[in-house]
Amino acid sequence: MSTEMEDIVVVFKEKPVLKDPVFVEGLPGVGNVGKLAAEHLVDQLKAVKFAELFSKYFPPQVLVNDSGTIRLVSNELYYVQRPASAHDVVIMTGDYQGLTPDGQYELSDRTLKIIKDLGVKKIFTLGGYGLGKMIEKPRVLGAATDLELVEEMKKYGVTFSKGEPGSGIVGASGLLLGLGNLYGMKSVCLMGETSGYFVDPKGAQAVLEVLAKILEVKIDFTELEARAEQIDLITSKLREVEPPSEPKREDLGYIG
Amino acid sequence: MSTEMEDIVVVFKEKPVLKDPVFVEGLPGVGNVGKLAAEHLVDQLKAVKFAELFSKYFPPQVLVNDSGTIRLVSNELYYVQRPASAHDVVIMTGDYQGLTPDGQYELSDRTLKIIKDLGVKKIFTLGGYGLGKMIEKPRVLGAATDLELVEEMKKYGVTFSKGEPGSGIVGASGLLLGLGNLYGMKSVCLMGETSGYFVDPKGAQAVLEVLAKILEVKIDFTELEARAEQIDLITSKLREVEPPSEPKREDLGYIG
Amino acid sequence: MSTEMEDIVVVFKEKPVLKDPVFVEGLPGVGNVGKLAAEHLVDQLKAVKFAELFSKYFPPQVLVNDSGTIRLVSNELYYVQRPASAHDVVIMTGDYQGLTPDGQYELSDRTLKIIKDLGVKKIFTLGGYGLGKMIEKPRVLGAATDLELVEEMKKYGVTFSKGEPGSGIVGASGLLLGLGNLYGMKSVCLMGETSGYFVDPKGAQAVLEVLAKILEVKIDFTELEARAEQIDLITSKLREVEPPSEPKREDLGYIG
Amino acid sequence: MSTEMEDIVVVFKEKPVLKDPVFVEGLPGVGNVGKLAAEHLVDQLKAVKFAELFSKYFPPQVLVNDSGTIRLVSNELYYVQRPASAHDVVIMTGDYQGLTPDGQYELSDRTLKIIKDLGVKKIFTLGGYGLGKMIEKPRVLGAATDLELVEEMKKYGVTFSKGEPGSGIVGASGLLLGLGNLYGMKSVCLMGETSGYFVDPKGAQAVLEVLAKILEVKIDFTELEARAEQIDLITSKLREVEPPSEPKREDLGYIG
Repeated sequence: MSTEMEDIVVVFKEKPVLKDPVFVEGLPGVGNVGKLAAEHLVDQLKAVKFAELFSKYFPPQVLVNDSGTIRLVSNELYYVQRPASAHDVVIMTGDYQGLTPDGQYELSDRTLKIIKDLGVKKIFTLGGYGLGKMIEKPRVLGAATDLELVEEMKKYGVTFSKGEPGSGIVGASGLLLGLGNLYGMKSVCLMGETSGYFVDPKGAQAVLEVLAKILEVKIDFTELEARAEQIDLITSKLREVEPPSEPKREDLGYIG
Repeated sequence: MSTEMEDIVVVFKEKPVLKDPVFVEGLPGVGNVGKLAAEHLVDQLKAVKFAELFSKYFPPQVLVNDSGTIRLVSNELYYVQRPASAHDVVIMTGDYQGLTPDGQYELSDRTLKIIKDLGVKKIFTLGGYGLGKMIEKPRVLGAATDLELVEEMKKYGVTFSKGEPGSGIVGASGLLLGLGNLYGMKSVCLMGETSGYFVDPKGAQAVLEVLAKILEVKIDFTELEARAEQIDLITSKLREVEPPSEPKREDLGYIG
Repeated sequence: MSTEMEDIVVVFKEKPVLKDPVFVEGLPGVGNVGKLAAEHLVDQLKAVKFAELFSKYFPPQVLVNDSGTIRLVSNELYYVQRPASAHDVVIMTGDYQGLTPDGQYELSDRTLKIIKDLGVKKIFTLGGYGLGKMIEKPRVLGAATDLELVEEMKKYGVTFSKGEPGSGIVGASGLLLGLGNLYGMKSVCLMGETSGYFVDPKGAQAVLEVLAKILEVKIDFTELEARAEQIDLITSKLREVEPPSEPKREDLGYIG
Repeated sequence: MSTEMEDIVVVFKEKPVLKDPVFVEGLPGVGNVGKLAAEHLVDQLKAVKFAELFSKYFPPQVLVNDSGTIRLVSNELYYVQRPASAHDVVIMTGDYQGLTPDGQYELSDRTLKIIKDLGVKKIFTLGGYGLGKMIEKPRVLGAATDLELVEEMKKYGVTFSKGEPGSGIVGASGLLLGLGNLYGMKSVCLMGETSGYFVDPKGAQAVLEVLAKILEVKIDFTELEARAEQIDLITSKLREVEPPSEPKREDLGYIG
């Protein structure tokens, strides 16, 4: 057995000591909403990378940087210390979600073990909610581990809508809530509406606007707005060329 | 190894002490016959949930309740204490069967370990037998671990028909019989005929009518009948629009 | 870990003491040649079943006997004691091969451990060699673990033809040779030519005729010949209706 | 557990003692460039085979030699002792890469453990870079674990081009770099441009010409050139018959 690779290899650069931290996750998914939002949050809060997760549940792949150097695909953990707040923040983002169902479970479970160790008691997972059609003003849908949190989230403008998402929440944004329950953690999934056809900075902004209020942070959205304009430009040109076809049923699912 | 998640996590709310209990399983499958039947049985017998199974063999998914709260997909165990009967009852139902062959084996094996521990010696698994065509009066087909049980079941109106099901029984309803044999358990699979094209309360009722006689319980079928009428209405409208096409061969298999 | 099912469960009815036994394997594959041959050998030699292998590498399935009783899909081991010969015989046949590559490796490796324990030093694996066209007089192609065995087999009429089979031997019939090498066992694969389109008793007979000479046993082929005639009848009728289409490239592979 | 086969079985014929060895890997991939290059290097340097890796992550397959003998599919390790040089060489080639993502990770990780044990501190992985169109003079693209190596490689004529390969490096040639980093090894991936439509000795030669300079070895390319001419002949004939269709997007990926 000792000759086998660990299923998940966690490399810590640092083990931060944090003050009642909340955890925020945003990984690739529908419209890449969660990943865009988490990366923007890392930038804006000047979060510090302290750990990398490598895993045989990810694709067997290295990415090549512009300089010609490589890095193995991974998930990454960042922290933010906030002296003026009661809560520090831990953020996870990365290149991929687990490729298989059991990989998804293992990765979420390991993440929960790590953040429990850091003292996390509350989780926010970020994702997109695929509508299969273009949307002007994306709402932010929510799901949470208990009714009290549902009510609290409504105050921040989160929509809880019966039957949405109908097929539940698939992937890390769902599992961290579901498995987190077994670890006694309270959690919320925030889903920004998105067509699901493009990388969607608008959906990411909608999600972050809610999260900023919850975390009491100020976020500059200039960069996300610029990216959204670029994508609007591209999609409006595409719409001139061909009318959007009716989405297939299976395109509407939520993975986040 | 200690850093890995257990393949199957069993969370007991309670460890009931039961009197020579029989076990009834009904999980999603053809026409959802088994799951409908088991859920209706839980309702009618006011069965009490005592354990949940979570597993990386299920999809990485949480379901969202109407209130906005979530729950991780699972299989669930219920018990019924029956002072007037020689046998208490344990019932399993749930959101999914295992996604992979080895997941199916692991989940059935774990279920057998749990129910053996509870004193179960006899198993009834419920499922649908897909015909690939509409059926007015569904028969209940059977399969059992020994000839004595086959004869006993015939008295309850169960049909044992040479060459049916020709491709055997796939999934939990089959494995619990086959693996149960290795645990010295006697078991019967009851399969309600169904087109396999729709969720089929009629097939579920047929199965439960037989099981009610075996378990000597009274079951009110009003609710299942109402659901069957709704579905009859939908399907009769569909038949007006387009004649049913010949089913493809692979649609006829039985998974239960 | 103790809560997990074993990957392969071996149930011994008996642990026979055998005299320098040779091992014969025939499992489902191209034209079902290997399985037909091994089953006919079991019948003819009145071989005694002494062990069953169940495994989560097989489909999660029970088969239903004509009487309504079930049995879990398995591989089976038989033995034949031959007082007049220097070699007893062990035969393996079964319902399925492993579903996945790693299942194939695990099952072959376990089989080798079992038969090594029984004193086996020589292996014959039986299979079909798919030609993708109808064949009147099937040849028996061979492959072996060493040149001496190749020469010996040629004397029994086995054809060794450069570049056949071009894509090697896939499945149990190949792995038992390849992994058997690591256990110091000498082995031969005998492949009966077959169209690969039908269950092929003719290919099975060809293989058994060679094996009968090697094992110095007498085999009555009446039953296989009768089945071959039935199949000839069916296929000749089919050929009247539609001319055989050119086989696709991927149909030609050998799995045995 | 002791009854299970090891995931990877390493059979050493010899444990060579080597002088600060560099490691070269070339396995099947796009245009088979890496494997062709590694095999040619083994021939030219008269490298000695000292270990074989068998694994359930490879197909369950034996290959049949022209003589009728078989060999289990494997990866192979060779060494070259070079008294006049500061560095001995270890070369890996083989029949397959791992079939699954986790198999890829396990095989690369085991390879790293083996070569670390041999004292390797520097790795060169060889592969093809699929262009999806015919190419006259293939460039050699590179990727490396650090900037110093990038600069060093440029001196040998290796091209580092922003955005190439855009989708990173998938398979052993990538993982050995990415995982090797965790073992403190410095590594370079050399990718020969190739259409990806044919086995491509020209791409292999381009890669080897660079590697020969780095390793300070003399390599005769007569054989590779002859094979390239043969393939040019075939492809030029094909082009007369039908014009090359536009490659599909997914054909352009790099696996090496």
